[in-house]
Amino acid sequence: MQGNVLIAQGGGPTAVINQSVAGMLSQARRYPEVRRIYGAIHGVRGIIDEEIYDLTETTTRNLESMAETPSSGLCSTRDKPDAAYCERIFKVLKAHDVKYFFYVGGNDSADTCYIVSEEARKAGDTIRVCHIPKTIDNDLMVTDHCPGYGSAAKFVAQAFAGVNLDNRAIPGVYIGVVMGRHAGFLTGAAALGRVYRDDGPHLVYVPEVSFSRKQFVHDITMTMETHGRCVVAVSEGIHDEEGTLIAAKFSGGETDAHGNVQLSGSGALGDLLASFVKQDTSFKRVRADTLGYLQRSFLGCVSEVDQAEAREVGEKAAEFCIINDRDGSVAIRRIGNYAVDYTFADLKDVARVTKTMPREYVNPAGNDITQPFVDYAFPLIGKLPQVTRIFAPQVPKKLA
Amino acid sequence: MQGNVLIAQGGGPTAVINQSVAGMLSQARRYPEVRRIYGAIHGVRGIIDEEIYDLTETTTRNLESMAETPSSGLCSTRDKPDAAYCERIFKVLKAHDVKYFFYVGGNDSADTCYIVSEEARKAGDTIRVCHIPKTIDNDLMVTDHCPGYGSAAKFVAQAFAGVNLDNRAIPGVYIGVVMGRHAGFLTGAAALGRVYRDDGPHLVYVPEVSFSRKQFVHDITMTMETHGRCVVAVSEGIHDEEGTLIAAKFSGGETDAHGNVQLSGSGALGDLLASFVKQDTSFKRVRADTLGYLQRSFLGCVSEVDQAEAREVGEKAAEFCIINDRDGSVAIRRIGNYAVDYTFADLKDVARVTKTMPREYVNPAGNDITQPFVDYAFPLIGKLPQVTRIFAPQVPKKLA
Repeated sequence: MQGNVLIAQGGGPTAVINQSVAGMLSQARRYPEVRRIYGAIHGVRGIIDEEIYDLTETTTRNLESMAETPSSGLCSTRDKPDAAYCERIFKVLKAHDVKYFFYVGGNDSADTCYIVSEEARKAGDTIRVCHIPKTIDNDLMVTDHCPGYGSAAKFVAQAFAGVNLDNRAIPGVYIGVVMGRHAGFLTGAAALGRVYRDDGPHLVYVPEVSFSRKQFVHDITMTMETHGRCVVAVSEGIHDEEGTLIAAKFSGGETDAHGNVQLSGSGALGDLLASFVKQDTSFKRVRADTLGYLQRSFLGCVSEVDQAEAREVGEKAAEFCIINDRDGSVAIRRIGNYAVDYTFADLKDVARVTKTMPREYVNPAGNDITQPFVDYAFPLIGKLPQVTRIFAPQVPKKLA
Repeated sequence: MQGNVLIAQGGGPTAVINQSVAGMLSQARRYPEVRRIYGAIHGVRGIIDEEIYDLTETTTRNLESMAETPSSGLCSTRDKPDAAYCERIFKVLKAHDVKYFFYVGGNDSADTCYIVSEEARKAGDTIRVCHIPKTIDNDLMVTDHCPGYGSAAKFVAQAFAGVNLDNRAIPGVYIGVVMGRHAGFLTGAAALGRVYRDDGPHLVYVPEVSFSRKQFVHDITMTMETHGRCVVAVSEGIHDEEGTLIAAKFSGGETDAHGNVQLSGSGALGDLLASFVKQDTSFKRVRADTLGYLQRSFLGCVSEVDQAEAREVGEKAAEFCIINDRDGSVAIRRIGNYAVDYTFADLKDVARVTKTMPREYVNPAGNDITQPFVDYAFPLIGKLPQVTRIFAPQVPKKLA
């Protein structure tokens, strides 16, 4: 089926999202089915506004440099299309003779793909729709893990490896708040940089387990007694037993187009957690950082594994959708330690729904991750810089 | 003069502070004057507690791995010794036959060195005292710049290069708070990753210029009109015309041993600045991050230039102090674009006092840095990862 290709990027950027665009594009350029390759600016918003660029003749150097640049090079949108919106998308795609539509994004973008695909089917149209997965939250169904997660996880691991060293040099309580509304995969990555037995984070709290202020302060107190210092990693999405977000009452109630409370872009949760510790203990040095947007956008922290997979996912998208002439969502399957291949899932199995961490990735006490999580996540972050302590014998005291 | 060497690290850690220890140690091991090389744990606190380790026979691999690990490997302290404290330091140094005392730190550590040096002189003692500079704030006198600054500046540059891309993908107002109580050197580095003309940060506020809420909101409004988005870099140390810290009333009044208000380890200032914008404008997406401790400790973001210089500063410290038999503080002198050599400053010229940015590094409006600052700072951060946009012709609209 001959025609044009259109690709767009939706949702939050990742460090490797442009690799998937480059992978699809470089592959699609070889296929005789493909006439022109278009890129819509700002996701589906750019489609309905017809803000479309012709990427067909992009130079290899430009494409490869863009691929290595973090954050959505075609820009993104938070728009979540309903049926009417999808109908407009469909209209524009037809007007530009687009036969293959690729949308790089999370579960909301998969949902958009699903609706457009259904619209096309109902209209008896031949347009093909392909979802290319990306999310730092790692919360998509079917796929073993999501492109974008490994690099964000590496950033979080390196951040906590660093603050652990800082906290060791100048002891106290350090709380770091990590992105993750429902899934604790990214927060769990805070533990991947631990080397020595007493390295932090000493405590890890994820949204999969209910959060209690009493337990939190108790855990920190115990850790301070053992190590004289305490590094804590906390998901922004922690909630109490009733499911109320700990951060919710401090957000000012701002919500996005999906009705979600604003969690990122504010230090309120970290400051609140620090105030718990200051109020309930006598520890003198209590600090909180919120890792914020650096987690998904920092220039120069990329997992080599993630980068290569995001590229392959883009290439496979072109193959599955254009050559095999199917609608679907590319999924990564783990077939070894560590090896993967790629499958093509049904859009309806990826759209809308999300996954969280299995309970076995969190310890029974709910304050740390487990070895099965490390086994799962460690291969995804690539190589970590080395951390070494100096070893030397103590000199006998002469005065004391 | 034969005897033992003792080294300690004080103040906030940096990414390359261990390079200076490794440089001094590897150099001192060659000198016949040196018997044993000791390291005190937790700075001057470790000296008075006699928590001393013998580093003389550290393996090369251990030393070199430690050198590449960020944050004070010998741990640090916030203690600021007075005369009585320095007398105790002096006593311990004598008890352990230390003839050469090296202290890696900022202006407070230089002050400690100065007091100990004066004590020794008064006592007619032959102990040599050497200050090895380090600080991410880059605020020491005499030296052109400080080891530790280049790596922290690189982190800040890469962070803002990334959030600029993120903000371009999903537009809005983004405010990033950077460390720096009195000096804006580190905040200015936010601008070093700008590539394209419309790249952020679009506004930069440093402590060298008084901060006004009205001007701040006005500047952001103008930037939003021009670019449809706005990235802002702000020093934690911004203050009003009376010199009152903008962050001060929100810190809970916590102060350190030096009487300084807590600025780091809290998201309060960023959230406050975001609230100014939310209250005074109708912009919908306003986000604030506080870069926090990652700036000085992040594992895996080091300026090659900074790393090499921190090493050389340590080597030169050994040479100046042990071979030339002098007290002082190592200083970097810029002798080309870009080339440096090293001099030995008087301790009293570095102790206590700090420097801030010359006014010519800030634009007349007080909301951005200037080319002279870029010329000064850019060579210090080493190589930055590339940032590239994809270039392609727009496809003519068919529907609108």
